[in-house]
Amino acid sequence: MTSPLRIALAGLGTVGSGVIELLNENSQMIADRAGRPIEVIAVSARDKNRDRGLDLSPYIWSDNALDLAAISDVDCVVEMIGGSEGVAVDLARNSLNNGKSFVTANKAMIAHHGMELAGLAESKSVSLKYEAAVAGGIPVIKGLREGASANRIERVYGILNGTCNYILSTMEQHGSDFEEVLKKAQELGYAEADPGFDIDGVDAAHKLAILAALCFGKSLDFGGVETAGIRSIMAADIGQAKSLGYRIRLLGMARIDDGKLFQRVNPYLVPEDHPLAHISGSTNAVVAEGNFSGRLMFQGAGAGDGPTASAVVADLVDIARGDSGAVFAMPAESMPSAERAESGNREGKSYIRFVVADKPGVLAEITAAMRDANVSIESLIQTQKTDDGSVLISMVTHNSLERDVAESLEKLSSSSNIQGSPMVMHLLSETD
Amino acid sequence: MTSPLRIALAGLGTVGSGVIELLNENSQMIADRAGRPIEVIAVSARDKNRDRGLDLSPYIWSDNALDLAAISDVDCVVEMIGGSEGVAVDLARNSLNNGKSFVTANKAMIAHHGMELAGLAESKSVSLKYEAAVAGGIPVIKGLREGASANRIERVYGILNGTCNYILSTMEQHGSDFEEVLKKAQELGYAEADPGFDIDGVDAAHKLAILAALCFGKSLDFGGVETAGIRSIMAADIGQAKSLGYRIRLLGMARIDDGKLFQRVNPYLVPEDHPLAHISGSTNAVVAEGNFSGRLMFQGAGAGDGPTASAVVADLVDIARGDSGAVFAMPAESMPSAERAESGNREGKSYIRFVVADKPGVLAEITAAMRDANVSIESLIQTQKTDDGSVLISMVTHNSLERDVAESLEKLSSSSNIQGSPMVMHLLSETD
Repeated sequence: MTSPLRIALAGLGTVGSGVIELLNENSQMIADRAGRPIEVIAVSARDKNRDRGLDLSPYIWSDNALDLAAISDVDCVVEMIGGSEGVAVDLARNSLNNGKSFVTANKAMIAHHGMELAGLAESKSVSLKYEAAVAGGIPVIKGLREGASANRIERVYGILNGTCNYILSTMEQHGSDFEEVLKKAQELGYAEADPGFDIDGVDAAHKLAILAALCFGKSLDFGGVETAGIRSIMAADIGQAKSLGYRIRLLGMARIDDGKLFQRVNPYLVPEDHPLAHISGSTNAVVAEGNFSGRLMFQGAGAGDGPTASAVVADLVDIARGDSGAVFAMPAESMPSAERAESGNREGKSYIRFVVADKPGVLAEITAAMRDANVSIESLIQTQKTDDGSVLISMVTHNSLERDVAESLEKLSSSSNIQGSPMVMHLLSETD
Repeated sequence: MTSPLRIALAGLGTVGSGVIELLNENSQMIADRAGRPIEVIAVSARDKNRDRGLDLSPYIWSDNALDLAAISDVDCVVEMIGGSEGVAVDLARNSLNNGKSFVTANKAMIAHHGMELAGLAESKSVSLKYEAAVAGGIPVIKGLREGASANRIERVYGILNGTCNYILSTMEQHGSDFEEVLKKAQELGYAEADPGFDIDGVDAAHKLAILAALCFGKSLDFGGVETAGIRSIMAADIGQAKSLGYRIRLLGMARIDDGKLFQRVNPYLVPEDHPLAHISGSTNAVVAEGNFSGRLMFQGAGAGDGPTASAVVADLVDIARGDSGAVFAMPAESMPSAERAESGNREGKSYIRFVVADKPGVLAEITAAMRDANVSIESLIQTQKTDDGSVLISMVTHNSLERDVAESLEKLSSSSNIQGSPMVMHLLSETD
């Protein structure tokens, strides 16, 4: 048997510890599949003495993660620290510069520094791998980078954040309000104490930008992701969507429009006969539509120690087997910056919900503003009075330019009859 | 740029032609992803003059596919001929023996000769790849061989035949009978004029045996797949299943039971909240449950020229990039023959439907036979008289040993009151 692949692991939280457990538990099988053993030889974390249920005595210990990049007989550094800046990215740069392959689950870092790090890895002829950064244990990076390599991908989209999907599908199931389900999710550990990263769509945007770079061969552009979250979704929205034959899901959606890159994270109304409508709980699912393969969908656990460790170790097996090929499928230096597509030019149906004062003339005011902006209404329901006596107006537009919808809402923004911002969601269609 | 990967292609039916079209249409992108161009240099088919809408003049032509294995500057032979024996397998042996990599969509050949060919490929240090042989354009072989490589797979199962799934989901949608839908499927080209291979489960069994070898590291054992098809399913069965909260799907199911290999293709009752229940039409889907990844599902088009070409060319890109690793994840010579698990030892709920004469005592006869075999009944419905005056009795058993169910049916087999063979299907459960 050839020499082992020697690993240094930075970060021993539950995921980092999970990687060590997995390598121990499945070691013989992994060695058979990799063609050689995979051995952790060094580790680093903040507190050596914390009880992790792991015997750390076989490993070189360092308090400073950056030391790992300098250990001469380490072949590959695994980063489980997190954060888009700071130690994680310094460790990535140092490791790659020292000719070591690098494996990470850090979506924020890849979303912010992916192009620089990919260029560095490729110039040093080592691997930079990040399967665990997108959709946890689902091998979607591999599926798209290699499995769909023969295809021009037309669009890529999916459910990229398990916390949001858990909240939305629980609201759907129990008719509960957002705040109530969020609180429950926090108690159950499905949502962070500070949930903003998840529920405002930032986490999904990180993952979407990575998928888009991989699928379209354009330079990764996290800043170009138009991002909205799920805080403003009401139980009534979910009920309305249901009565129209849709379910609400937070989707990341990316495609190329006339050579320009369109990237958006937003709640969508997903038709009940679309496979994404049936993804419940914290499951993730990614759909890619190739010009020869047709629609492919990958689904599974989007987070968790086991799934994340599974993805990290799959990357290590690839490296042990002699992984080759560009980090984002195309060589980083050949990936042009993409112009950003304007969402205003996009045409489709939208769901719009207003909270309005219960007095005469409000409906006329809204419908007139829509008419003046060339937005025609397919269906409209005025429903429940809320506790404070206000009323909900939900509508679905006919196919309209998003610019026109935005213009109509702009006109209404000064109305004293409308409370807060209206909720706008798009209806997922074949051409979205 | 390094030298091109030079291909010889045997078989120019719609799929073989599709591979050439794909390589032409996406050539630059494929070269970028592969790190070098992929060039067809030779082709073979039965009739050179058939109009395929392709210009064959750039390629070396041979009437005899076996010639391709002898062309010295061919790196890789692609086989699109089909059939488990004959030219296809001779071409595989000759190509691998001559140190050429080999790519095929031929599930029957891999199911029958996979171990021999894998051993040959590994001894010659060339690749044998077969992504298109299982589930068409879905990169499930890659997903399991590489994406799930860190996991011990607990079980693998799924919808592996698009024709059967089209027929079952159409019967479900329209309440139609099997024969009627089969005829329609044949008219639409979704089913062959001689549909036995598909509807009797043989095609799914080929694919299942391949998946099982890949997932469990046991020697491929097509002969060990217990196989049944969908011919005997009545519209009434689908209606009964629906009223119980299930949909009927033909599944391939494989797992390791106490070190023994269990492989079965059979119609199952799939609970409506299971993702496979929502796979309609000719779509395929494969579920694998890993000990760290949890449940993964891959879905997409299981057949068709475009999807098949997509999978074949993905294999070629891998080879161009320097694919390495064992054909079935583990080295073929290290894969032991598995003992076959006895399905009689399996415990679960079964759906059983009898067609019986409409006279007194029949129900007593059936229920007594069940009781005597220790099979207890959870629910039972006696329903529609069919045109000839007979009656349907459908039941679902409590958890029972399959051996006991078989014993009860054996006892009833001599009854003059029961027409034909009863239809037996298992209810898919977490422990199936």
